[in-house]
Amino acid sequence: MSDESTIKLDIDGAAEFLNLPPSKIKKLLSKRRILQNWGKYQHLFRFDKKVSKIDSGTVLYQNNEYFELIRGFPKIKRAMAVEPAVKSHFSDIDTVAVEEKMNGYNVRVASIDGNVTAFTRSGIVCPYSTERAKYLIGHDFFNDYPELVLYGEMVGPDNPYVPKNIYNIESLDFFIFDIRYKNTGKPLPVHERRKLIDKYGFRQVKLFGEYRIDNAPEKIIEIIKKIGKQEHEGVVIKDPHMQINAIKYTSSESNCADLREGFKFYNDFGRDYFFSRVIRESFQSVEWGENEEDFQKRCLQLGRSILEPMSRTIKKVSEGKEIHEDVHIRVSEPETIYEFERHLKRMGIDAIFGTPQQTENMYLVKIRKLNQSTNDKTKAIWNGSLWKS
Amino acid sequence: MSDESTIKLDIDGAAEFLNLPPSKIKKLLSKRRILQNWGKYQHLFRFDKKVSKIDSGTVLYQNNEYFELIRGFPKIKRAMAVEPAVKSHFSDIDTVAVEEKMNGYNVRVASIDGNVTAFTRSGIVCPYSTERAKYLIGHDFFNDYPELVLYGEMVGPDNPYVPKNIYNIESLDFFIFDIRYKNTGKPLPVHERRKLIDKYGFRQVKLFGEYRIDNAPEKIIEIIKKIGKQEHEGVVIKDPHMQINAIKYTSSESNCADLREGFKFYNDFGRDYFFSRVIRESFQSVEWGENEEDFQKRCLQLGRSILEPMSRTIKKVSEGKEIHEDVHIRVSEPETIYEFERHLKRMGIDAIFGTPQQTENMYLVKIRKLNQSTNDKTKAIWNGSLWKS
Repeated sequence: MSDESTIKLDIDGAAEFLNLPPSKIKKLLSKRRILQNWGKYQHLFRFDKKVSKIDSGTVLYQNNEYFELIRGFPKIKRAMAVEPAVKSHFSDIDTVAVEEKMNGYNVRVASIDGNVTAFTRSGIVCPYSTERAKYLIGHDFFNDYPELVLYGEMVGPDNPYVPKNIYNIESLDFFIFDIRYKNTGKPLPVHERRKLIDKYGFRQVKLFGEYRIDNAPEKIIEIIKKIGKQEHEGVVIKDPHMQINAIKYTSSESNCADLREGFKFYNDFGRDYFFSRVIRESFQSVEWGENEEDFQKRCLQLGRSILEPMSRTIKKVSEGKEIHEDVHIRVSEPETIYEFERHLKRMGIDAIFGTPQQTENMYLVKIRKLNQSTNDKTKAIWNGSLWKS
Repeated sequence: MSDESTIKLDIDGAAEFLNLPPSKIKKLLSKRRILQNWGKYQHLFRFDKKVSKIDSGTVLYQNNEYFELIRGFPKIKRAMAVEPAVKSHFSDIDTVAVEEKMNGYNVRVASIDGNVTAFTRSGIVCPYSTERAKYLIGHDFFNDYPELVLYGEMVGPDNPYVPKNIYNIESLDFFIFDIRYKNTGKPLPVHERRKLIDKYGFRQVKLFGEYRIDNAPEKIIEIIKKIGKQEHEGVVIKDPHMQINAIKYTSSESNCADLREGFKFYNDFGRDYFFSRVIRESFQSVEWGENEEDFQKRCLQLGRSILEPMSRTIKKVSEGKEIHEDVHIRVSEPETIYEFERHLKRMGIDAIFGTPQQTENMYLVKIRKLNQSTNDKTKAIWNGSLWKS
C-alpha cells in the first residue's frame, strides 16, 4: 500500500456541491485546509479548519460526480458558571435536556459506499474504531437510514486514546449522543433520537432529565456533584428540539483527572490545556459558594493533581527510567492491528506495538505510547540544562 | 511636548559604530526592532529584540557623530534542579559567588550627557526611577567613572511595578548587583564590584558567600530554605570572575507569591508565566527529596496560591466591583508625576493617578492600575458568556 494519492479532488464538482468558487477550493487544497484520507479511503477528503459554515473535521466524500458531506461535530462551548450560562444561552426556550458527557473519544459512524465507517474528530478514518463500529452498529440501521450519521463517544478500557475504567465497560463501547443528516448536518430532536437508538438496541449516553430553565442550574449542579464522585466527566445541556447549540459543564474530579494525566507528560501537553482547567476550578468554587473546609479540600486536590504526576515523572526520569503511557486495543481482525499502527504513525504518535495475544476470538495488543518531549526535557534538566528564564 | 521625533538615527554612523551593514540598521528600524525614546530622550535608541550580540534592551546613545552603547542586562537562565545545574554550568571553575536575587524591577543607571539617567529593562528611560537614581546615586560616582553602568534592582513599597514590603525598606532603594562598562558590556569581577560600591556608600545585594562547586548546591538549598521563609525571592549564582554567565534559583514561597499575584489578574498574565512557575515546584520537591507531609504542604500551598486570588477576583466581579492594583510613588519633583503618567500610558498600562499628597518634602501619588482583560473576561462569564471549548 503506497501513501501516494491516486485519487484527486474534482475541484469544479466539489465547488458546485459546496457552493464555493473553484478558486476557493484550490486555495484550501494548497493551504492544506482540505486534506485527504489514506489508502483505500482516499475518496474521503477532510476539512482541517472551519471554512465558512463547514465545521472542522467535516468529511467530503467523492464518488465520480457524486458528493456527500459528513459534517464535523460542532464544538460545544463550555459554561464556566452554570446559572448565568444556562439562563442566558437558553433564554428563548422553556426547558433543557441534560445528557451525560462521557470521557472517551469522539467518533462519527456513517455508511460509506455501503460500508460502516468510523471517523475520529478530525475526519480521519480510524481502522480500530471502524472495526468496532462494524461489530457494534452493523448494517441494519444504515440499510434503513443511509442518510444518517451517528455521533458518539467510544468509551472503555480498550480505548487507545483515553482509556477509562470508570464506566463498568468490559472492552470498548459506543455511546451515541447525536444523530445528524448527511450534507445538512441537521440533528434529530433529543427524544426522537433517543427513541430511534433504543429501537435498534444501541447504547446511548444517559439522559438525566428535561428541566425548566429556572431550576435547571440547580439540578445540573446536583448532578455534577453526584457524578463527580465517580470521576464521571460532566453533562451536555441541550435544547430538546436541537435548534440552539448545546453547552457543556464538567465536574472538578474529571477536571483534576485531566490535570493528573496532563502533568504526567507536562511538556507534551499545551499550556492552554492546563490553564483552562485551572480556571474552571475557581469559577465552580465561587458559584457553589464553598465554605472554607471544602475550599481547602479543592486547593489540596488541585495542587496534588498538578504536583503528584509531575513529581513522579521527574523521579522516574532521574532514576534513568523512561516515561510512557501504556494502552491496549482488542481486535478481531489481525489486519486491523497493522492498519491501526500505520494510522497512529501518520498522526505523529510515537508508539511501540507489542506482540498480539490471542484471547478467545480476539487479539489483545499492548501499545506503549512514548512521550518524548517530556522525557527529553526532564532528562536534560536532570543533567544540568537550564530553563530559558 | 510632542511625540513626533525630531531626531533621526544616523544610519551610516550607527552602522559603522555597531559594525553592521547600513542595510541591516535600516531593516531593524523598519521592523521596529530599534525604537526611540520620547521627548527629551529621543537621542536614546533601544533594541527591542536581541540582534546578533546586542542583548534586547540595549540602548544606543547618539550625539552628533558620537555613539555609545548601554548594554541590556543579559537574560539569566534558571536552574530547575540546583545540583546538576551548578555542577554542569560551572564545571570549569572552582568556586561560585552566591548573591541575593531581590524582587523589584531591573534598572540600569548611567551618566548620559552628564545627567544621571535610569533605564528599565527594555531600555526605556523611566522618569520616576531617574529621579530616584539622581537622589540615591548622584554625580560623584559618574564623575569618577563615566564609562561604567550600574545594574541593580529598585526595591521597596514605593515601587509602582512590583511593590514589596518584605525587605524593610521605607520607600524605594536601589540595590546594585552588577557593574559593566559602556559599549563592551564587560562586567567587573564580583569582589571588585562590591568594593567599589561600598566605597561610594551605595546599597548592593547581599553576598551570601563564595562556595566550592562541590558543596555549593547544598549551601544554596540551605540559603533558599532560609530566605524563602521571609518570602525573599532567591539567589543568583555567579562566576566570581564574571566570565561565565550567572544562573538563578528561586524559593517556592516567592514562586507562590508570583502565582498569587498572577492569578488575581488571571486573564492579564501570560500562560507561560503560570506554567513555568508550576513546573519549578515539582523539580524542587523532587530534588529536595521531600517527605509526604512536606509534599502535602507544598500541594496545598500551590493550590491556594492559584485558587484563592482567582476566586477573590471572581467574587469581587460577581458583586459588581472592579478589580485593580493599587500602587504608589513618592517623588520630590511634581514634574516627575506628570512624566511618569505619560510613561505608563506609552507603555500601554491603564492607570488612574490620584491627587498628589504632600508629605514632608515629597509628594505621594496613589496609582490605580486597571487590569481590564481580567475584569472584562470575568464579567462576561458572570453574565453567561461561554468558554471556547
